[in-house]
Amino acid sequence: MKTFDIQPLDRALERDIIDKIDNLTKPKGSLGRLEELALQLCLIQKTLSPELHAPTNVLFAADHGIIEEGVSVSPKEVTWQQLSHFSKGGAGINFLCDQHGFTLVLVDAGVDYDIPSGHGIIDMKVRKSTRNYLHGPAMTEEEFDLCLERGAKVVDEIADSTGCNIISFGEMGSGNTSSSSIWMHLYTGIPLDKCIGAGAGLDNEGIRHKYDVLSRAVAGYNGDGSVRSKLAWFGGYEMAMAVGAMLRAAERSMTVIVDGFIMTSCILAASQLYPAVLDYAIFGHQGDESGHKLMLEAMGVRALLHLDLRLGEGSGAVCAYPIIESAVRMINNMDSFGSVNVTKYF
Amino acid sequence: MKTFDIQPLDRALERDIIDKIDNLTKPKGSLGRLEELALQLCLIQKTLSPELHAPTNVLFAADHGIIEEGVSVSPKEVTWQQLSHFSKGGAGINFLCDQHGFTLVLVDAGVDYDIPSGHGIIDMKVRKSTRNYLHGPAMTEEEFDLCLERGAKVVDEIADSTGCNIISFGEMGSGNTSSSSIWMHLYTGIPLDKCIGAGAGLDNEGIRHKYDVLSRAVAGYNGDGSVRSKLAWFGGYEMAMAVGAMLRAAERSMTVIVDGFIMTSCILAASQLYPAVLDYAIFGHQGDESGHKLMLEAMGVRALLHLDLRLGEGSGAVCAYPIIESAVRMINNMDSFGSVNVTKYF
Repeated sequence: MKTFDIQPLDRALERDIIDKIDNLTKPKGSLGRLEELALQLCLIQKTLSPELHAPTNVLFAADHGIIEEGVSVSPKEVTWQQLSHFSKGGAGINFLCDQHGFTLVLVDAGVDYDIPSGHGIIDMKVRKSTRNYLHGPAMTEEEFDLCLERGAKVVDEIADSTGCNIISFGEMGSGNTSSSSIWMHLYTGIPLDKCIGAGAGLDNEGIRHKYDVLSRAVAGYNGDGSVRSKLAWFGGYEMAMAVGAMLRAAERSMTVIVDGFIMTSCILAASQLYPAVLDYAIFGHQGDESGHKLMLEAMGVRALLHLDLRLGEGSGAVCAYPIIESAVRMINNMDSFGSVNVTKYF
Repeated sequence: MKTFDIQPLDRALERDIIDKIDNLTKPKGSLGRLEELALQLCLIQKTLSPELHAPTNVLFAADHGIIEEGVSVSPKEVTWQQLSHFSKGGAGINFLCDQHGFTLVLVDAGVDYDIPSGHGIIDMKVRKSTRNYLHGPAMTEEEFDLCLERGAKVVDEIADSTGCNIISFGEMGSGNTSSSSIWMHLYTGIPLDKCIGAGAGLDNEGIRHKYDVLSRAVAGYNGDGSVRSKLAWFGGYEMAMAVGAMLRAAERSMTVIVDGFIMTSCILAASQLYPAVLDYAIFGHQGDESGHKLMLEAMGVRALLHLDLRLGEGSGAVCAYPIIESAVRMINNMDSFGSVNVTKYF
């Protein structure tokens, strides 16, 4: 199995960083979460003056065998159609990347379609769609390892070529809220029915059916009980690849902006393998997918934004970027008491 | 008294706007609050393709007689020192305005200091500090009217010279959370103790003292009971000027981004005079000042951001700007189903 060497944050500079933040010309603590973010970024980068370089959103796409069971309102063809659409511009993630200066990188992790060349979509296809995990593992453990490797490789290529040190991940894959709900259930212990929501737009009857299918799938698991076995059994190729990408980004001391429900389940999965990955994570957005709030609470983290987004694609992560940039500007550009004629106030 | 002609939003285009948003290539509703913002901006601008021009943050500063009673931890000198600091750059609001392309306009509404020229601070000073409203009205009703006029004039000069159509307001003024708490109490009916918080950093004893002072002040009111009389009695010059500025901005069909606790109390006050002003308002940030959440709930509105900011200066409003810009990019730049080869999904 692919391994990673992820260091917990070095706290050596923590006191100096906090002193710097507390001496900026504002009442102590009055910039709230910007101050928390600045501290985290400084610790990740081991500096009092962090910088953000070449922000990139990597969008992994794949199809899911489980949608044969009618757990998603989106037909499978939408995965490929939307991936092609992203490559041409004009989709949701495109305007957000344009706005915030993100490069958008598209990766075929396992789309059930022969993607023509010339779209700028990186071919990392493991297989055309996972298998239906109601009847057996969605992917083999070898395929899971391959996803970790390929996700890591994508991050390496981006970071080596652009100097990117802040990266978000998004996804496209009809049926992937089902995998996310199961991963969440397995690694938070929260009852499955609390982990299941409407996905891209199921009604109540649809949600009941989804619960029925997924609870039978969970009951049917008969692997060896290891984290790797369970992630492979219920995962998606795009999700496993995101796990590998997150782990490699953390290993390289990059900052990872986590998108919504699906990407949160991916970093939860990543943290089951390497808990320190969470030190490098900023949670961009808490969506209205039922369960996302519970998952974030179970991980003891708070998202930056609450905008009722449920688009995926990395949209919630990219939307949060200006807040992170504000934190960097705060600690680098604000004057400190002592350097200007302002009485220290509280 | 200065009057304003503020039209409630014309709903004629509403159906067309919603149709446009629902046909963008995304599951219906999946861009959440961006979709709400796009609708509001389209209605304000009477178009299906809204634009944002020359965003501006106007910061009104003034001093408050009530701080003689020890209701604020910030000494009065901080008002002038920080105003000077804003004019040189290096304060909190400066890096946020730089980041988001805002012009920062500084207005002396009533600072208790002879401000030297050459700082680029617009002189609208009504008087050096309000009076102490524990013993009588903070300002005369004539002064209140003058504030409305001058606030309106500032907006006119900005809009006429730059084409600005989106504007936020901020404040600097030791003691102004006290006025805000009283305005909130008077116009929401929420008990005064629930309207009072820590301001820039009072401890529990300080908050009890503040409650004691403000409850005696409210009991001592003996004006004619009109909205104008009460706003003048307990207001601040910077706050009354912000009220006039908000009313004029709405009259001109500009979009108003509302900052934190103090500016929320100002638009609450403005809405007591002209309820339609709220149609033009976007609430940028819900801070951790006790009472802000209650005030927003009482007005039936939700803020975009929750970042625990309590700096004032317009910081929460300016931080919210990229979300508003995202809404504009969404409706203008996204493809619609039909124009691209994507099956409509839900």
